[in-house]
Amino acid sequence: MIGIVRRGFSEAKTLNLQTMNQRLFKASYAVRGEIAIRSMEIEAQMRKGQKFPFESISACHVGNPQVMGQKPLTWIRQGLALAAYPELLNHPELFPPDIIEKIKKLLSRIKGGIGAYSESQGLLAVREEICCHIKNRDGLGEVLPQDIFITNGASPAIDAVLNTAISGPQDGILTPIPQYPLYNALVAMKNGTNIGYYLDERPHKWSISGSSIVKSIENSLAKGIVPKILVVINPGNPTGEVLSLRAMNEILDICKDHKLVLFADEVYQDNVYTDEKSFNSFRKVALQKNSPVEIASFHTVSKGFYGECGLRGGYAQIMNFDPKIREQLLKMVSIMLPSNSLGQIALALALHPPVSGEASYELYKKEKDQIIGDLKQRAKAIDKEFNKMINITCGDVEGAMYAFPRILLSKKAIDAAKEVRVQPDLFYAMKLLEETGIAVVPGSGFGQQEGTYHFRITTLASNMIEILEKLHNFNEDFHNKYKD
Amino acid sequence: MIGIVRRGFSEAKTLNLQTMNQRLFKASYAVRGEIAIRSMEIEAQMRKGQKFPFESISACHVGNPQVMGQKPLTWIRQGLALAAYPELLNHPELFPPDIIEKIKKLLSRIKGGIGAYSESQGLLAVREEICCHIKNRDGLGEVLPQDIFITNGASPAIDAVLNTAISGPQDGILTPIPQYPLYNALVAMKNGTNIGYYLDERPHKWSISGSSIVKSIENSLAKGIVPKILVVINPGNPTGEVLSLRAMNEILDICKDHKLVLFADEVYQDNVYTDEKSFNSFRKVALQKNSPVEIASFHTVSKGFYGECGLRGGYAQIMNFDPKIREQLLKMVSIMLPSNSLGQIALALALHPPVSGEASYELYKKEKDQIIGDLKQRAKAIDKEFNKMINITCGDVEGAMYAFPRILLSKKAIDAAKEVRVQPDLFYAMKLLEETGIAVVPGSGFGQQEGTYHFRITTLASNMIEILEKLHNFNEDFHNKYKD
Repeated sequence: MIGIVRRGFSEAKTLNLQTMNQRLFKASYAVRGEIAIRSMEIEAQMRKGQKFPFESISACHVGNPQVMGQKPLTWIRQGLALAAYPELLNHPELFPPDIIEKIKKLLSRIKGGIGAYSESQGLLAVREEICCHIKNRDGLGEVLPQDIFITNGASPAIDAVLNTAISGPQDGILTPIPQYPLYNALVAMKNGTNIGYYLDERPHKWSISGSSIVKSIENSLAKGIVPKILVVINPGNPTGEVLSLRAMNEILDICKDHKLVLFADEVYQDNVYTDEKSFNSFRKVALQKNSPVEIASFHTVSKGFYGECGLRGGYAQIMNFDPKIREQLLKMVSIMLPSNSLGQIALALALHPPVSGEASYELYKKEKDQIIGDLKQRAKAIDKEFNKMINITCGDVEGAMYAFPRILLSKKAIDAAKEVRVQPDLFYAMKLLEETGIAVVPGSGFGQQEGTYHFRITTLASNMIEILEKLHNFNEDFHNKYKD
Repeated sequence: MIGIVRRGFSEAKTLNLQTMNQRLFKASYAVRGEIAIRSMEIEAQMRKGQKFPFESISACHVGNPQVMGQKPLTWIRQGLALAAYPELLNHPELFPPDIIEKIKKLLSRIKGGIGAYSESQGLLAVREEICCHIKNRDGLGEVLPQDIFITNGASPAIDAVLNTAISGPQDGILTPIPQYPLYNALVAMKNGTNIGYYLDERPHKWSISGSSIVKSIENSLAKGIVPKILVVINPGNPTGEVLSLRAMNEILDICKDHKLVLFADEVYQDNVYTDEKSFNSFRKVALQKNSPVEIASFHTVSKGFYGECGLRGGYAQIMNFDPKIREQLLKMVSIMLPSNSLGQIALALALHPPVSGEASYELYKKEKDQIIGDLKQRAKAIDKEFNKMINITCGDVEGAMYAFPRILLSKKAIDAAKEVRVQPDLFYAMKLLEETGIAVVPGSGFGQQEGTYHFRITTLASNMIEILEKLHNFNEDFHNKYKD
């Protein structure tokens, strides 16, 4: 009886859209939003024999290299097989001696093997490898294993550090517009306040400007929200920008002046395609200028040339953090139990590949060069191709795995979208999907300047030329149909 | 300047104990608490050559079978190796034909292999296997793959469903006392209100009583907190109780009357050691009585006789949920990206083992019988041994992997604990660790009736007899030392 009185009528579910967590209800995540859902429906309908004007879905909406044909590195996969089933260590006829040695050494340090829970922060043996990698990458300073938190991919690492930091709506989190929407979704879930700062879109170039960040800080303070965290994605997702040292120095200065914790999303650190720039970690730049800024940097085996998304191996590396906060972070990851051991092994293998002279080196180098060559070639071609299309402009893809072209939409197209109550760029993307099978994510899912429209497309498809040709034709037809 | 004015003084870190998420600060998680931390310190000191009155730590504080010597099932590990490195599929001299066939069939349905992100809810092929397993286990009803959410172990599944449900402090979550402290920690983090209900401790027996739950509901309503979720752990952690059908029916009736969503933590469903009882799922009992109660049930490869904690493969199965809430749950798991594919493969292998006549069957059966035999033998011995010790009583270990003996502590012992400002049972557990190397979790970490003291010890150690002997001697010395 009590139940009935309290909840209105007995037929309603206890958990419904009104009674559920309203913060989750309001959170949105476009990468697996309408387009992803419709793609899956189409695939299910295809399996049942329904016909579409295309043979298959081109999944250009998720940065998921191996689904687009990228091959895994033999070095990593051999290591996983050996770690999962150590009886194979007795088969030198099947595995090169260096991978056998590597796994033997790792396993000798893992109590209970890969079937046991690891330490809450991740296997010490693997954290030591990560520390060594970071030091070699940056060429300076020390990194301690206690500052590494291994997680099931970078997203749970970001989630854990955000959980430590966000108390409530009084905490502002500065995130780029456009941005990979994980951040907005998590901040909304955790009841923090999202504060956007705009990236500058100019012909052929996206860039981050200190003045845009400062402007957002000032606007936020005026509203009584104190910015606490600044999120920077470098190389940029979805923009593909690789930050210059000058921009990084400026960002660190802003963080220092405004006492912001810096979230350095550096998961695309191995994905740089331009010869004019190279990746620099915020850690390195901060060490060089002796910056006191608290930095959490994130990395993963899902991206780079490894592309091992399915393994879920990632980590946070913290620096300049209060040791007491490190303890709280440890409690946080302890509650959710350690990350999967094979993802951890994959991290150790990815960050410490075979070197010249070792048995696995030649094959490793061949596979790596092939993958990087393909990624580079496609990244360099894609913006050029977009810039040839009518009503489309596209910034250079310097890094990451995406292009983020801008579409100029006519009033007629915008009105047509309004009629079916969807964002204009979702309208465009949905038509693209229905007519060509190409799945992309509309720019509205990442945020964009009002009145501008974009979409994000991955640079991963092995048949990229064919896809761009289809997109070219679709785009032409679309703009002809919706000419003002 | 703004930064300095706002934060007090510039030396303070932006993120410190005052500015951090206060909900996390208050959350506690005893399983990886003081005892776990001290164990790791001792191990580190031992590696540096420091001497202790024991040779090694006996890690009886975490349900981590393989670290205690339990061997993985060959069937699962062969499957993982084949899925990770499919070139091995061409080596029938190394693998039985049934596991090769099984993995070939699974891989044929996984686009991009195990290195690709799976569907957000988990691989459809694996969800179908889970559905089939659930149906076979319960012998009735249908389960649809859309109601299965595969996650990195059961904890993230529980986290995800709680995220969907908890809006704020007005939502009450009924959790058992004592309980596996994941629930209290997560509810605190999510800003819900924990409402404890006491389990009954009688000689040789822990049990759950409907009247205790109803009493807690009434107390809660009187304080203006509306209970929304009831958490039941069956078999019980830490109590080892296996629920009777009568108790389960009563619980479902309470949920129906009070419109509670039932969280059925059924991760120990394969760990039942008494011949008088068997595991029944809440799903089965609910279907039999046509109950409308919304149920989320949780399972994992970490427990059972698989004991594959390091793989992180678990799932939630929801029933009677509002389809719109299912969509929100899908959004929730999408944000954090899919769980690791090898953990998913492990689930498929664990839930669909080889059957009589297949090539892997004999070895599988031998390994399984050995593990179950060992678990059973130790579970049956441990409570008897505890009941022989002075000032200790212990309920029967009917299921799960733990005993939860009660210690009668003298005033002198309690005063000594007060003097060093720790809970009396932590005082006992810490002395036990320092003197014998045996790590257990104090009962205060799980909750207990005021004035009672317990600890949780796993039944996993292969050298359990030796451990119990040491514990016996320690216990005698302790009580002699602290005699009133």
